[in-house]
Amino acid sequence: MKGFAMLGIGKTGWIEKERPKCGPLDAICKPISLAPCTSDVHTVWEGAIGERHDMILGHEGAGEIVEVGELVKDFKVGDRVLVPAITPDWHSLEAQVGYSMHSGGMLAGWKFSNFKDGMFAEYFHVNDADGNLALIPEGVDPVLAPMLSDMVPTGFHGVEQAQVNFGDEVMVIGIGPVGLMAVAGASLRGASRIYVVGSRPNCVEAAKFYGATDIINYRDGSISEQIMDLTDGKGVEKIVIAGGNVDTFSEAIKALKPGGRIGNVNYLGSGENIKIPRVDWGVGMGHKVISGGLTPGGRLRMVKLSKLVQYGKLDISKLVTHKFNGLERVEDALMLMREKPKDLIKPVVIVAEDLME
Amino acid sequence: MKGFAMLGIGKTGWIEKERPKCGPLDAICKPISLAPCTSDVHTVWEGAIGERHDMILGHEGAGEIVEVGELVKDFKVGDRVLVPAITPDWHSLEAQVGYSMHSGGMLAGWKFSNFKDGMFAEYFHVNDADGNLALIPEGVDPVLAPMLSDMVPTGFHGVEQAQVNFGDEVMVIGIGPVGLMAVAGASLRGASRIYVVGSRPNCVEAAKFYGATDIINYRDGSISEQIMDLTDGKGVEKIVIAGGNVDTFSEAIKALKPGGRIGNVNYLGSGENIKIPRVDWGVGMGHKVISGGLTPGGRLRMVKLSKLVQYGKLDISKLVTHKFNGLERVEDALMLMREKPKDLIKPVVIVAEDLME
Amino acid sequence: MKGFAMLGIGKTGWIEKERPKCGPLDAICKPISLAPCTSDVHTVWEGAIGERHDMILGHEGAGEIVEVGELVKDFKVGDRVLVPAITPDWHSLEAQVGYSMHSGGMLAGWKFSNFKDGMFAEYFHVNDADGNLALIPEGVDPVLAPMLSDMVPTGFHGVEQAQVNFGDEVMVIGIGPVGLMAVAGASLRGASRIYVVGSRPNCVEAAKFYGATDIINYRDGSISEQIMDLTDGKGVEKIVIAGGNVDTFSEAIKALKPGGRIGNVNYLGSGENIKIPRVDWGVGMGHKVISGGLTPGGRLRMVKLSKLVQYGKLDISKLVTHKFNGLERVEDALMLMREKPKDLIKPVVIVAEDLME
Amino acid sequence: MKGFAMLGIGKTGWIEKERPKCGPLDAICKPISLAPCTSDVHTVWEGAIGERHDMILGHEGAGEIVEVGELVKDFKVGDRVLVPAITPDWHSLEAQVGYSMHSGGMLAGWKFSNFKDGMFAEYFHVNDADGNLALIPEGVDPVLAPMLSDMVPTGFHGVEQAQVNFGDEVMVIGIGPVGLMAVAGASLRGASRIYVVGSRPNCVEAAKFYGATDIINYRDGSISEQIMDLTDGKGVEKIVIAGGNVDTFSEAIKALKPGGRIGNVNYLGSGENIKIPRVDWGVGMGHKVISGGLTPGGRLRMVKLSKLVQYGKLDISKLVTHKFNGLERVEDALMLMREKPKDLIKPVVIVAEDLME
Repeated sequence: MKGFAMLGIGKTGWIEKERPKCGPLDAICKPISLAPCTSDVHTVWEGAIGERHDMILGHEGAGEIVEVGELVKDFKVGDRVLVPAITPDWHSLEAQVGYSMHSGGMLAGWKFSNFKDGMFAEYFHVNDADGNLALIPEGVDPVLAPMLSDMVPTGFHGVEQAQVNFGDEVMVIGIGPVGLMAVAGASLRGASRIYVVGSRPNCVEAAKFYGATDIINYRDGSISEQIMDLTDGKGVEKIVIAGGNVDTFSEAIKALKPGGRIGNVNYLGSGENIKIPRVDWGVGMGHKVISGGLTPGGRLRMVKLSKLVQYGKLDISKLVTHKFNGLERVEDALMLMREKPKDLIKPVVIVAEDLME
Repeated sequence: MKGFAMLGIGKTGWIEKERPKCGPLDAICKPISLAPCTSDVHTVWEGAIGERHDMILGHEGAGEIVEVGELVKDFKVGDRVLVPAITPDWHSLEAQVGYSMHSGGMLAGWKFSNFKDGMFAEYFHVNDADGNLALIPEGVDPVLAPMLSDMVPTGFHGVEQAQVNFGDEVMVIGIGPVGLMAVAGASLRGASRIYVVGSRPNCVEAAKFYGATDIINYRDGSISEQIMDLTDGKGVEKIVIAGGNVDTFSEAIKALKPGGRIGNVNYLGSGENIKIPRVDWGVGMGHKVISGGLTPGGRLRMVKLSKLVQYGKLDISKLVTHKFNGLERVEDALMLMREKPKDLIKPVVIVAEDLME
Repeated sequence: MKGFAMLGIGKTGWIEKERPKCGPLDAICKPISLAPCTSDVHTVWEGAIGERHDMILGHEGAGEIVEVGELVKDFKVGDRVLVPAITPDWHSLEAQVGYSMHSGGMLAGWKFSNFKDGMFAEYFHVNDADGNLALIPEGVDPVLAPMLSDMVPTGFHGVEQAQVNFGDEVMVIGIGPVGLMAVAGASLRGASRIYVVGSRPNCVEAAKFYGATDIINYRDGSISEQIMDLTDGKGVEKIVIAGGNVDTFSEAIKALKPGGRIGNVNYLGSGENIKIPRVDWGVGMGHKVISGGLTPGGRLRMVKLSKLVQYGKLDISKLVTHKFNGLERVEDALMLMREKPKDLIKPVVIVAEDLME
Repeated sequence: MKGFAMLGIGKTGWIEKERPKCGPLDAICKPISLAPCTSDVHTVWEGAIGERHDMILGHEGAGEIVEVGELVKDFKVGDRVLVPAITPDWHSLEAQVGYSMHSGGMLAGWKFSNFKDGMFAEYFHVNDADGNLALIPEGVDPVLAPMLSDMVPTGFHGVEQAQVNFGDEVMVIGIGPVGLMAVAGASLRGASRIYVVGSRPNCVEAAKFYGATDIINYRDGSISEQIMDLTDGKGVEKIVIAGGNVDTFSEAIKALKPGGRIGNVNYLGSGENIKIPRVDWGVGMGHKVISGGLTPGGRLRMVKLSKLVQYGKLDISKLVTHKFNGLERVEDALMLMREKPKDLIKPVVIVAEDLME
């Protein structure tokens, strides 16, 4: 089969590989829709996860099952399914304690385009089909379904970590697709005032659509000073970090109330240390809790989040600004993510012929 | 001063009383807007809290401060304020452990029209003004503000107790004003499918406005059977009980998944026991958690919930179907609550002349 | 192979069966030590789980692996292992949401001597070996290891559900082996005063060993009245129910403070309804949370709890009052559980020859 | 009255001041026993909280009430009481949201020897007596009672923030008196293996008494490497930081499992930033949660923790290595804390004549 791969750091190309083999618990899918992720860009051009050779890219997509293992009970050939970016080993000790995304080691629940070939291929392999796949429910557009693999669950996980409650004032730093889903998630957890940090006009417009009430542009001064001005010097109660870098945390700590929480979902690609300013952190005793975590994946996550789309509580269509037809266009879609033109939020690539637009 | 009072079980009337005295931490307010509550009806005509003589009614309202105690720091005469139905003693042990509504004894955080005179008078007394009042924020209509005293916090507390999470399927039993706010609250905590049990057309319409996806009419068969039909025999994940009686719990337990939670906010006025069906409750081991609790009150609650209105996340206008002008009309408003005409959700009585419509 | 089975309600006997088959994820074990459970008694002589024919009994034991499936990674033939009574399907949706004990349906994580043959046989089958077994750690006596299958995790789960915190006053109702482990668990969660309800002298003595400070005998009057006398009318903060019947809950609700929690781990074998007294439950609003649940099982649970024994934090030896040598003695041990002589807490049957005493 | 004060940074001495005045909610106490704290040392000789002039020191003590305000209900002159180091304003918004220690601003619940005069005087002032004092229960030695002001609640709060669960492997960094109470608290929350970092022989001995299973000496190599050796490269599940400095966090992050939690209760007196190593923190996504917070104070905290002593669950006598008689000896006791001789854990000063030994 052919697949679009990272050939090595800085290099991509189409390669031929054997179709993956299906274990007794597994499924083999062909993609019906796909999306490139900023992490694919980091992986290839920044070497963020280290060197990889001829590894097929892609961890956002929906698929059609072409083969199932003999122990798979709930899925059959022909089913069209949501595929999460994170596909844990559910019987691992890490999963049993509630951290399935770290099953087998820190971050090791993330397998596609990390420890094994990704989805940008004619076929891809899913471990533990019963535990990791979910049928695409009626009312969810299969073309938009790749948004449920990573963007929605990751953005929402920032909100989960920040523990947003009714009426909380929340800041979301970064309003790319993950940040936008953090805004949507904060709205769906009962945030009142939602400050977002960002400047690209189409993202600002989408942020307002998803519930942002105040836009902060980092070009107008430090984030924390702007927040303090807007909150009469009190700060916000919860912060989701969905952009920036290791230095962003300092601003976040300064903008946060005692008793507040930071939920980070931003992949920190470089820098030796995150720095927490001692005095603003209450000399160690301000109860400004710092959490950062990979999203949960797996079947339940797909079921729960897709229901929000199905029942009209979450509109994911605003995330997709570009559409391509045909597997071969994943290359163009990825390059678009790399270039980040002004009007881009996310592209999708439609692979199934019956879905092409 | 004059006030509209319960004279005894089954009897109401206007009485003269001395204006309440202001302790060092307290405030005296005159009402600017008021609303009667179904509990006022229970109190008077069902004797739900026992005999009371010449007790002024009313625990939903907004006020203007006319006097403050010498230790009050954050409020001054002339401030227009939200007044919660529940006004705890914040330094009590119960409050320190997180159950301020039970400060001084079970349910004893509820003082207005229970342990002391309520708000249906020319003046009313608020204990611990700094701890229990909140300025009416810009963007919140003072005429609608009484909805924030009890209906919003109580409905939302059902959702808090049920611990609604992203994507949960939730049932709300009862869609009077509290149930409607439970629907709104479930939507604001990320529920996906929201089943409501009710039949009055204007309430059904409002329930849909607030996020209900499925309407269940108890006249069409048992609630639990209808839920099982709608959920392929699986049941719902969370239930808020905002109506019914002691027998409602049995249906709720049957309609609930293992690991589910029930949050009751319905005042149970009669019946000796709530009955939990043993087998459906997993012979004691099904993890169907049953919680029932009086809403938190106090200042923070008012601040947090009013911000949802202020920032456009919650529209409370749909709750108010009838408006009256003048304190003397609280009698008519209460009788309306007692009669419950078809088109009623909640009435408000506008007392401040500048707010009259 | 031979096994000791329930032949039908009220009848037991030794039967011959084929040795169970090992799936790719599974293990086959031979027992090294076993214990009968009160639930075995309920199952056989009360028909508590309904009719069963020729079902081998037993769900408390430790084993030696004699066969592993080809997908098992962490265990090999010859390993001596802890075996939990509850062996979930870890990739089920129920497990993913945190309720593994209900994987596949309410209580369906309990498979041994319920949905499949139990451990009282020459060989027994363990589903998902990597997810459900744990090596017996050094420092844990294999003869006592069956206490970790059910008694320790179940008693501790009562404490988990009751959410015992530093300094809480806790009541444990019932001081059979599960109740004793609830006492030990409450001590290990920071309870201060621990009231226990029981009367058998050896159990009372063991309860004191595990941390009980006050003994309540139900023959001296109602439990709730005794608690009120002992607590100046305030009640306790948390209650674990590990004995009694459907009527026990009424006493528990009466003895509980507002904001308190009940954790039930008692199998309720008969009675149509649990009755919650309306007024004592705060007319639905007293925040007296009622939880009842089957213990979590699986590998992590075994690892965590056995470490408490290994590092000297929990002494399980006090639970075992009788020891038998040889598989054939499980019959005697079960009859002992049925008869409940005065000096009994739990018997164990030593099966491995090298362990016999 | 006379009091032992900080005259300025680096200077202490006895001064004369007016006896503090009693507001309507307050109490005036005379000390019956006192203890100096390492923070007193930091305050005076490191200027940790900035310049102070003629501020009476001391925030650990027990007292006898000599005057109460007219609104105080639960205490009277002559009562002997536990006095917490942290005495919040209970009706503040911060207290209502669960962070009473930050009432009025970050850390502002800490008033004694910070924002007002402390306890090292003939008399001291307690704000909100009903909310902040607790009777010394029978069974608690008044001479040891100052340990309940700060050492016990602070050590335990590290454990609360780390969220120790049954069977967790826990590391406690620092085994001064706060660290020792973190060890005791971890034991009382069900930790299994408890690694402590420290080297002073009397502290090591006390740590073992309180439940430590493994002693780590930082002179034997980096903490994280020693932990990795001891845990087969897996790390610990929870960490309490009760000593060290801003650089300690880096070691803690490295020694922590994904999904683990750090609870810091160490006052960080210097250094610009706490540094969180990016890669070990899972590039922002390892779910290694970092919390640091001032202990809760107030009446409930005193009631709950003193009950652990009263009912024999916690032995605080091992903390006190030196005793002095007479208020004038607080100077010697403080100098002892400053010098930290080898055999010191904590000194107490007995002020009440009937308690002198």
